[in-house]
Amino acid sequence: MNNESPISLDYLFKPQTVAMLGASERFEYFFIGLKQQNFDHSNLYLINPRKEEVFGMKCYKSVSELPVDTIDHLIIAIGRGRIIQSLKDMLTQKKIRTIHIFTAGLGESDEEGLVIEKELYDIINGDGVKTRFLGPNCMGVYSIPGHLSYEEDLPTEPGNISLVFQSGDLHSQVLRVAHNRFDLNFSKGVSCGNCLDLQISDFLHYYERDKETDIIGVYFEGFSKYHKKEGKILLNTLKTMKKPVLFINGGSTDRSQKAALSHTGSIGTNQNIWKGIVKQTPVINVPTSLDDMVDYLYIFDKIIKRYKDKNEIVIYPKGKNALLVLWSGGFGIIDTNTLTEIGLKVPYFEGEVLEKLMKIHPIVLGSVKNPLDLPWISGTKEYVDLAKVAIAEGNIDVVMIETGTSDDYAQSEFFKRHVDNIIQIKDFTESLNKIFLLILPNYRSKVRERFFDMLSKEGFITFPSVRRAGKAFLALHEYGRKIKRFNNI
Amino acid sequence: MNNESPISLDYLFKPQTVAMLGASERFEYFFIGLKQQNFDHSNLYLINPRKEEVFGMKCYKSVSELPVDTIDHLIIAIGRGRIIQSLKDMLTQKKIRTIHIFTAGLGESDEEGLVIEKELYDIINGDGVKTRFLGPNCMGVYSIPGHLSYEEDLPTEPGNISLVFQSGDLHSQVLRVAHNRFDLNFSKGVSCGNCLDLQISDFLHYYERDKETDIIGVYFEGFSKYHKKEGKILLNTLKTMKKPVLFINGGSTDRSQKAALSHTGSIGTNQNIWKGIVKQTPVINVPTSLDDMVDYLYIFDKIIKRYKDKNEIVIYPKGKNALLVLWSGGFGIIDTNTLTEIGLKVPYFEGEVLEKLMKIHPIVLGSVKNPLDLPWISGTKEYVDLAKVAIAEGNIDVVMIETGTSDDYAQSEFFKRHVDNIIQIKDFTESLNKIFLLILPNYRSKVRERFFDMLSKEGFITFPSVRRAGKAFLALHEYGRKIKRFNNI
Repeated sequence: MNNESPISLDYLFKPQTVAMLGASERFEYFFIGLKQQNFDHSNLYLINPRKEEVFGMKCYKSVSELPVDTIDHLIIAIGRGRIIQSLKDMLTQKKIRTIHIFTAGLGESDEEGLVIEKELYDIINGDGVKTRFLGPNCMGVYSIPGHLSYEEDLPTEPGNISLVFQSGDLHSQVLRVAHNRFDLNFSKGVSCGNCLDLQISDFLHYYERDKETDIIGVYFEGFSKYHKKEGKILLNTLKTMKKPVLFINGGSTDRSQKAALSHTGSIGTNQNIWKGIVKQTPVINVPTSLDDMVDYLYIFDKIIKRYKDKNEIVIYPKGKNALLVLWSGGFGIIDTNTLTEIGLKVPYFEGEVLEKLMKIHPIVLGSVKNPLDLPWISGTKEYVDLAKVAIAEGNIDVVMIETGTSDDYAQSEFFKRHVDNIIQIKDFTESLNKIFLLILPNYRSKVRERFFDMLSKEGFITFPSVRRAGKAFLALHEYGRKIKRFNNI
Repeated sequence: MNNESPISLDYLFKPQTVAMLGASERFEYFFIGLKQQNFDHSNLYLINPRKEEVFGMKCYKSVSELPVDTIDHLIIAIGRGRIIQSLKDMLTQKKIRTIHIFTAGLGESDEEGLVIEKELYDIINGDGVKTRFLGPNCMGVYSIPGHLSYEEDLPTEPGNISLVFQSGDLHSQVLRVAHNRFDLNFSKGVSCGNCLDLQISDFLHYYERDKETDIIGVYFEGFSKYHKKEGKILLNTLKTMKKPVLFINGGSTDRSQKAALSHTGSIGTNQNIWKGIVKQTPVINVPTSLDDMVDYLYIFDKIIKRYKDKNEIVIYPKGKNALLVLWSGGFGIIDTNTLTEIGLKVPYFEGEVLEKLMKIHPIVLGSVKNPLDLPWISGTKEYVDLAKVAIAEGNIDVVMIETGTSDDYAQSEFFKRHVDNIIQIKDFTESLNKIFLLILPNYRSKVRERFFDMLSKEGFITFPSVRRAGKAFLALHEYGRKIKRFNNI
């Protein structure tokens, strides 16, 4: 690696030529993945001295045999015992811009692995070596513009979220679950394993300048022992990021640091240092869960797209006041409890606002004091009028409407008017640059799925519970508060 | 109401005759509900002086016209202005065993409502009145053995869970979501509204003696101001319950108590009193969320059934030690973090146990130190052998295996062997009276749904995240700890 003329990560994410050393039927998932992403197979070179062909493609005996001088991206998938010699040979034979070392069993494993990793580190830092290395012990690159995937069944449509994860499986699951649950799409992603060369901060720098990336998701476990300064570099990088970085720190507790050591051989940060980093930078700390990461990506993606489509700067919520609209007092009460518990406020309407609301709906059933508990009128004009007054005059930052449907109800005129009502309330809320979230509990039912699909098409942000909606909203609010402070907006 | 000879709640849950005062097309959902439950319409009497018939059924002008002397269950669905006189008339005309007052706008509403509620209270407590009253301001009774439902699309198959809820909508949603999400079934349920006569404690007593009920779910908001002693009665009732009571206290914070006042006119307990009740009784406190209630009902239902099928007493988990099995270090780390955070332990294997595990699988990839991070071997015999040693010798109380599938993978032989492996591990775990939970993330995919259905048929308890699995497990553990203490088991 030569710091003075770093190879652009474009070669990693949009390679013209990809080669795989150690190609075999074992890696069927890799070939299916590339095929699903429409990677041009004439730019793919397979290398395996013991094979004539794999999946109907010619196999070359060695890198030196390849009919090209330059390889943008080489994947090494051979046993740990052979990688050092292979690398030494290959680096002299061809110009290789980026190398992904899939091979595991190195620094995260046993004594033998530690020795090999040290030799690998020395090669990476050898004189004149300009190649950049991803891994070892990682799944590699996913890139929609580059038509790359390391696995089957990852999303194939372009989006504006990019990821860097120290776990390939977690990376794949975020891509799959986010896509299948919320129709989210991504631009790029890497699983970076033991981070012997390329660091999480390198990807943050790249994504920050990447026009196809608007939101960045990170799963971090710890630093390589060869990169003792990476902590400081990461801190400084995070400080200057102008794009939202949603960050899971997997190695933030003693118990999980023990586990991280045998996963990527990484050294975790302690809880206090991590808290300091979160405080000093605009990074958003995501709880250590797949669901939270997906929920946060979802709300950021939807809100950022909403403003981008209008060519406007994103306006993040300034306060934490929630308006709850539902037609059940019971839900109103448990939801108020939950939102209050996680840190939102549910302002209790009194005085002038209450009077205005009571004028629209002199209520005998339900309540207009927030939660708006509005039984039997969710399909009437009053429902919209009440919500509009509450939103405009109740000092509200986020509106949450709880809804649902059932087989017979879905067919009714009343339900159609209800849907029309919630669309009106959503549009009104967003016209005031406030956040509108719909709560639709998750269960197996065709009519529920159809309702969800229709709502998604209408641009609704739909969470399965107020707890999850509230947590995602708070991340958005926190980010707004932070960029104001760090970017002097 | 006459305390000396209380009417059995059998008349409420298994009425021979049901009448509805105020029947009209507005209540279509009620009629559809009864039809779906196969209620015998020849035992249903509709009353409405302004109608000749409703849904093809004859409408009587008044209760006095009905061709029966005794009505087991009468539903009153008329405006609040007319209920007092109606009640006075009806109670002299017929023997009415139970009355459900659907009418709202009483104690939870305005001054006028408060006055009507006081008059209602006086009637209920009038000389010689033996009728028991449900409500006012509630949806009423759901009963599988009684063929009753107050709404359409509620589950129709029999189960062993019974509910008493101070919110009809929350009640319906728990029934629907639990059934659609986890195939749970119920025996009985009531929405009890303002609790002017029948109290939550009355239903607890009934369910405790009810052979069709094994598990009880409660949603509580507060006490009627006419029943100042109900707090003490509820405490004493909860103390003696031998069946698990899963209890949401909706009115446990100041803010939610304000909301409860306009929902059921109830006076909530404060947080400290509630904590005291939870401590002094075997009740299980459920967080104020639909998902948690459904998750807890699910795990209790499955575990209790497992032992019931064998005619054995339920053995609840004694410790909180979790074994995590997965094939991804990243998930291992975030899951360890999450479980530790919510109060479980993930014992780190060392010494003899680790040696035994290493003998089975001299690991280069992954880890056997717990989490068992086992890439590439989830379909091999080693996978089962490792899990068995860890479970039997690792001082484990609950096993969580994280799994998933995808279109192509689901077709593979390897996947079939993996499924066979997890069945073996489940059977082994349960043979040791430990808890086995499967983690399968929730997203929209046909292959995922098929996998989930197959797992359910095999008797797996399947949660969408370790957080939810862990919380439900802790409720089970807590209950085991409590019954040991309260029932001297």
